[in-house]
Amino acid sequence: MKRTERVGSIIHILTRNPNKAYSLQYFCDFFGAAKSSISEDIKTCNEALDIVGMGRLETETGAKGGVKFVPHISKEALLKLQEEFCEKLSDSSRMLGGNFLYTSDIFFDPQFVKRLATVFAVKFKDCQADYVATVETKGIPLATEVAYLLNLPLVIIRREAKISEGSTVSINYFSGSYDRIQRMSLSKRAIRQNSKVIVIDDFMRGGGSISGISEIVSEFNSSIVGIGVAISSIEPKKKKIDNYTSIIQLGDIDFENKKIETLPTFDII
Amino acid sequence: MKRTERVGSIIHILTRNPNKAYSLQYFCDFFGAAKSSISEDIKTCNEALDIVGMGRLETETGAKGGVKFVPHISKEALLKLQEEFCEKLSDSSRMLGGNFLYTSDIFFDPQFVKRLATVFAVKFKDCQADYVATVETKGIPLATEVAYLLNLPLVIIRREAKISEGSTVSINYFSGSYDRIQRMSLSKRAIRQNSKVIVIDDFMRGGGSISGISEIVSEFNSSIVGIGVAISSIEPKKKKIDNYTSIIQLGDIDFENKKIETLPTFDII
Repeated sequence: MKRTERVGSIIHILTRNPNKAYSLQYFCDFFGAAKSSISEDIKTCNEALDIVGMGRLETETGAKGGVKFVPHISKEALLKLQEEFCEKLSDSSRMLGGNFLYTSDIFFDPQFVKRLATVFAVKFKDCQADYVATVETKGIPLATEVAYLLNLPLVIIRREAKISEGSTVSINYFSGSYDRIQRMSLSKRAIRQNSKVIVIDDFMRGGGSISGISEIVSEFNSSIVGIGVAISSIEPKKKKIDNYTSIIQLGDIDFENKKIETLPTFDII
Repeated sequence: MKRTERVGSIIHILTRNPNKAYSLQYFCDFFGAAKSSISEDIKTCNEALDIVGMGRLETETGAKGGVKFVPHISKEALLKLQEEFCEKLSDSSRMLGGNFLYTSDIFFDPQFVKRLATVFAVKFKDCQADYVATVETKGIPLATEVAYLLNLPLVIIRREAKISEGSTVSINYFSGSYDRIQRMSLSKRAIRQNSKVIVIDDFMRGGGSISGISEIVSEFNSSIVGIGVAISSIEPKKKKIDNYTSIIQLGDIDFENKKIETLPTFDII
């Protein structure tokens, strides 16, 4: 086999399985090649990935060591993504009644969601998290992608306890957006005790729903180690939670003049 | 730039954007290389991808032409996936009351879901579909991945009409699994008229929920061109819909002896 093909194959295997470590031995066996050749190949893979600029290979030593693909987004690519996102969200045809904006087309566009997910995968890569959690429904594709990029299982908190979830833990919380008490439920099988959880959601206004997630997670003696929301609302300034990361911010929605104010969040990564 | 690195970069760009056509000119501009060199590179990329066996590059001519990565799964890899899936599902600790099995761990495992999604992406690649649709909640990660692999937008049908969906179309249908009337709703903005839709779900018993999706899709003068469910139940034999593809089948659940019967579906692709 030619070296070029081997390098191409290694790139495909590693980038398809982000944050999953493969031993050099794995590739030696796969290609029937010497360790020294594979080491050389990995270097070349990294040079190839640098050109595209969407991630790098990192080598870890030790028993669980090996080489893995770690997604990355450059500052320029992030700013471009934020500008595109702001432009999408500012489209006045999104305006619905009751201060709501239609955003399903954005959060159900798998390619766009993958780019947003990369931001959180970079932000939270060193959190040592065990799970990525979200509450149904609109943030699920985004959370799925973040979980995939971080090589973690996904946890979906339901609005209602379902028979197919087995026994569940439920809590009530106040949602400012809907101005009423809401309920969320999580299967007792979904999270091991003493885990670390990253929370991902599409939108945050006052933080009620994320503080609900925090409460339900603490029922599992587990804690939140990162919070990422795609869009945060500037108002109310005082949120029920601290230390969240949003990609862009939503300002005033002026229904009369059909203007939606948006701005990128700076210094995310 | 060395040729090996260029090949590695091209593989990364194409495989990260499945079923999206890139013109040769795109790569000529990106790398500052001649068309003849890029043509050679594409051939080498294909040889590299053949080694890994998870997809191939296809070249289309014409105005919308270009080269694209088309995911693939070999018959052997499919059978291995099915066996793994059957083994997971047969685990008796999944048994819940009321003839239900706990499957969230399977459907919320992004890596496993990506493998399942590849089966449907291969099956439905020539459907000329405009959307991939599912009804919340458990099939969303799978449907997201299928949509991603086919380069299509995702449509999520909700159980309840939400303010944030704007005006919606709603229908009632009878769910055999839950033995009651259920409701589903879809935003009027979600699907253009006269579209073709692939439906993806995690599980099908009698087909009530998918026939509900079919009904709601027809309200948009649109039609279903493919149905993929990860698990289909053998009973009832008579389903409310025909022409679906399942990856594995669920047979008898014997609560007393803690046995769950499963088998692969043959001749899927």
